[in-house]
Amino acid sequence: MTSSTEAETRGTAVGELREQLAVLADLHAAEALLGWDRETMMPPRGADARGEVTATLDQLAHERLAGPEFADLLDRAAEETADDPDGQDAAIVRVVRRDHDRAARIPVELPAALARAPAAALPVWAAARAESDFAAFRPHLERQVELRREVAACFPDVDHPYDALLEAYEPGATTAGVREVFATLRAGLVPLIAAIAERPVPPPLPGPLGHAGQREVGLEMARAIGYDDSGWRLDDSTHPFSMSIGAGDQRVTARWDDADLGGIFAVLHEVGHGLYEQQVSPALARTTLGTGVSLGVHESQSRLWENQVGRSREFWSHWLPRAQQALPSLAGLELDAFLRSVNVVEPTLIRVEADEATYVLHVILRFELEVALVDGTLAVADLPQAWNDGMRDLLGVTVPDDARGCLQDIHWAFGELGYFPTYAIGNVMSAQLWAAIRGQVAGVDDALAAGDCAPVRDWLREHVHGPGRVFDPPELLRRATGQQLDPAPLLEYLRVKYGALYDLAG
Amino acid sequence: MTSSTEAETRGTAVGELREQLAVLADLHAAEALLGWDRETMMPPRGADARGEVTATLDQLAHERLAGPEFADLLDRAAEETADDPDGQDAAIVRVVRRDHDRAARIPVELPAALARAPAAALPVWAAARAESDFAAFRPHLERQVELRREVAACFPDVDHPYDALLEAYEPGATTAGVREVFATLRAGLVPLIAAIAERPVPPPLPGPLGHAGQREVGLEMARAIGYDDSGWRLDDSTHPFSMSIGAGDQRVTARWDDADLGGIFAVLHEVGHGLYEQQVSPALARTTLGTGVSLGVHESQSRLWENQVGRSREFWSHWLPRAQQALPSLAGLELDAFLRSVNVVEPTLIRVEADEATYVLHVILRFELEVALVDGTLAVADLPQAWNDGMRDLLGVTVPDDARGCLQDIHWAFGELGYFPTYAIGNVMSAQLWAAIRGQVAGVDDALAAGDCAPVRDWLREHVHGPGRVFDPPELLRRATGQQLDPAPLLEYLRVKYGALYDLAG
Repeated sequence: MTSSTEAETRGTAVGELREQLAVLADLHAAEALLGWDRETMMPPRGADARGEVTATLDQLAHERLAGPEFADLLDRAAEETADDPDGQDAAIVRVVRRDHDRAARIPVELPAALARAPAAALPVWAAARAESDFAAFRPHLERQVELRREVAACFPDVDHPYDALLEAYEPGATTAGVREVFATLRAGLVPLIAAIAERPVPPPLPGPLGHAGQREVGLEMARAIGYDDSGWRLDDSTHPFSMSIGAGDQRVTARWDDADLGGIFAVLHEVGHGLYEQQVSPALARTTLGTGVSLGVHESQSRLWENQVGRSREFWSHWLPRAQQALPSLAGLELDAFLRSVNVVEPTLIRVEADEATYVLHVILRFELEVALVDGTLAVADLPQAWNDGMRDLLGVTVPDDARGCLQDIHWAFGELGYFPTYAIGNVMSAQLWAAIRGQVAGVDDALAAGDCAPVRDWLREHVHGPGRVFDPPELLRRATGQQLDPAPLLEYLRVKYGALYDLAG
Repeated sequence: MTSSTEAETRGTAVGELREQLAVLADLHAAEALLGWDRETMMPPRGADARGEVTATLDQLAHERLAGPEFADLLDRAAEETADDPDGQDAAIVRVVRRDHDRAARIPVELPAALARAPAAALPVWAAARAESDFAAFRPHLERQVELRREVAACFPDVDHPYDALLEAYEPGATTAGVREVFATLRAGLVPLIAAIAERPVPPPLPGPLGHAGQREVGLEMARAIGYDDSGWRLDDSTHPFSMSIGAGDQRVTARWDDADLGGIFAVLHEVGHGLYEQQVSPALARTTLGTGVSLGVHESQSRLWENQVGRSREFWSHWLPRAQQALPSLAGLELDAFLRSVNVVEPTLIRVEADEATYVLHVILRFELEVALVDGTLAVADLPQAWNDGMRDLLGVTVPDDARGCLQDIHWAFGELGYFPTYAIGNVMSAQLWAAIRGQVAGVDDALAAGDCAPVRDWLREHVHGPGRVFDPPELLRRATGQQLDPAPLLEYLRVKYGALYDLAG
């Protein structure tokens, strides 16, 4: 793909567009730092002011992107790039045109209201969860649902109002399409989980595992994947997350526990996100295309490193001896026993603690509830009962209180309706990409067994990371795997993996 | 002072102005966080992108403030506030009008160039200082001096081009005025330092002092002054600094040494800055007036807590026993001996390690050199020699290399010409304010000797902190002390203090 230099575009509409996009990208970078800092460093009393600053930067970016001058500029840049439709500049115009069209539909006062609502809702949600008091959170959730319905109403031409929300997180996805994929997943997962439930539950890892040793091993694994100390940070936070602040500044967080290796798996997960951002082509820096294309594709990257790589026999045949040096309680543990203990499948109440098989069912429940909240068939007041019914139907578990039920996740306090399904979409994609890697990269199993992550990293750079937002998720997936979104590889991967670990009848 | 509410100003020019100022204040808050993070958290490879983001936010703020629409808005707001010239809104219009006039003089491309130059100069300066290689840094310093001369040239109506630079850091100060104050200081300090040099040098504190104990005691002192754990942070950094990120978010840093209590005095100093920002009237939040009025006044606050309070007999009569618990090497040390050891006066090479008496002479040298660089009577190439000559004349010390000479400070790599004199101005003000406090606050010595900083904190809130940028430094000083900037109280304070400690002839 051809890429223009600054000198070549000076005085052109493309050059002017690139200057405007650099401003937008810089505003987003500042917002990313404000967000990272809020979760890791900010003193609690700074929360209100932080909410204002974030809302202001959001608003400034929105005004620039949505304005009529920006539309004119895009028209002029489109003319200039018409003779090279496969070039980078044409791709920029195409993707940013869609961003503009979406932003221009949203009335000017809505972004600031959307940005401010979490500041009010988050502390109430945190207190409500601590007390298991849904009634306290209910008015804030009603407000958030109402705001998202206002957003959806700006896009009257979609098939389902939820499509408009989904599009913001997963371009190209539709409610109907997700429903179909999720139905297949549900049909495949429920009997698999039932079959595993017949087998004895593997014992937990012997502990206490110790935070410092886990951090040390987690960092070594992170470096093998692509983390480097001059361009990354690893910090602690209540909820692990990853944030790209800019070129050469990837930040990941983890939470450490003495009872399991959740901290190490969090590092693998978050480094998967960070590696995606780090490996986007530098030619896209400060264009607003130099970042992950969707939350689903992002989640495919974190889950691939956490699960397909990070819970595999090959990976741990290299790393278990190292972990046993740093974590003495693991001494003498056989690889087979270790793999069973880090691959327990068991229906539980909490999504973020769920295993690979049951996780998807947690997401399906949230998707169904969100769709119903948005199309008005479910009232917020009826959410707890609907949640509890869903958990019983999908996972066969009884929810004892709302803290461990519909108050468990932070997403709705942020107003992020449309986000949850991308977790399951990412899992589906991760299995498709993993199948492609194993088909295309010779010796990948041997490399992982030798502690060498470079073949996987390099394949991902070329086929997934490099293009940033140039291709839509469906197009990116088609180029990388030859397929559309397809749940079959995930179901097959889980059947093979758990079939062996749990000795299930083929 | 009357203050309008949001509801009262809706639809008015004042209301519109306040909205615009909130955006500017939020941009500045984001820049503050970007700067804090750069010095404490950012991975090194993030530096280039960070420079771009900072330059962009600078540019956005400049464009808004300098534009003709903003001038119109100020005109309309001035009309609305004409009937209440002592009200807060009138003060806002008056101060922001000056900010606008200054910004409007500077051509649109200059702020981004000014913001970007440090990113290029800083790594070269750091390497040049490490190698004591002035020639390597010289072109960058020439570029920075040239840029500042361009800024000065935008203000042809000042008496001296350096006035234009000084005004950015210390509104109301002039080159001629500073020269006069500095001449008096020099005339008073040189004989005082010579007299002390006749006396034996007090021994250093017994060590090793230990970082953890110093941090613990430093934090306790900080809390006595006004630090609270829900709205402040204390971190480590190579160079101690303070940064106000917003309401409820004050951040200070320190560096710890086993050989002296420099870390504790850095905490007192930086908490003095943070307290100023914390105690500005909340009614000024997000108006761009809700911050310290000048670097000189800011420095008066840090130095007052570090020196007038923090090196005093009263303060340590309370804190020494506590310090001796946390720092066992101090056990058995008498208060008199302790005070002599933390009040050593000795001409040395490095400004940031200098004592209260010699410090001002370091600043005078930098002021004289900056004025000469800006008016063209000194070429950058001749700076090292001029520096070394000045150190000999002012302090009687021989500079062995440029690392310990003209390369020691980071300010010129940042291009901050006009900044240095504010350090000495702050020292002068701190003594004036301290004399006022001791004259006006009954029982202040007893309170400090009981560990109670509230009387000092409360006086400063009312007389210095609360008004933010409403009054110019000269006006603020006049209201608080009844005086104009006057070096006599500083000279008197130092003569009394060192006279007792060093047993000098009256």
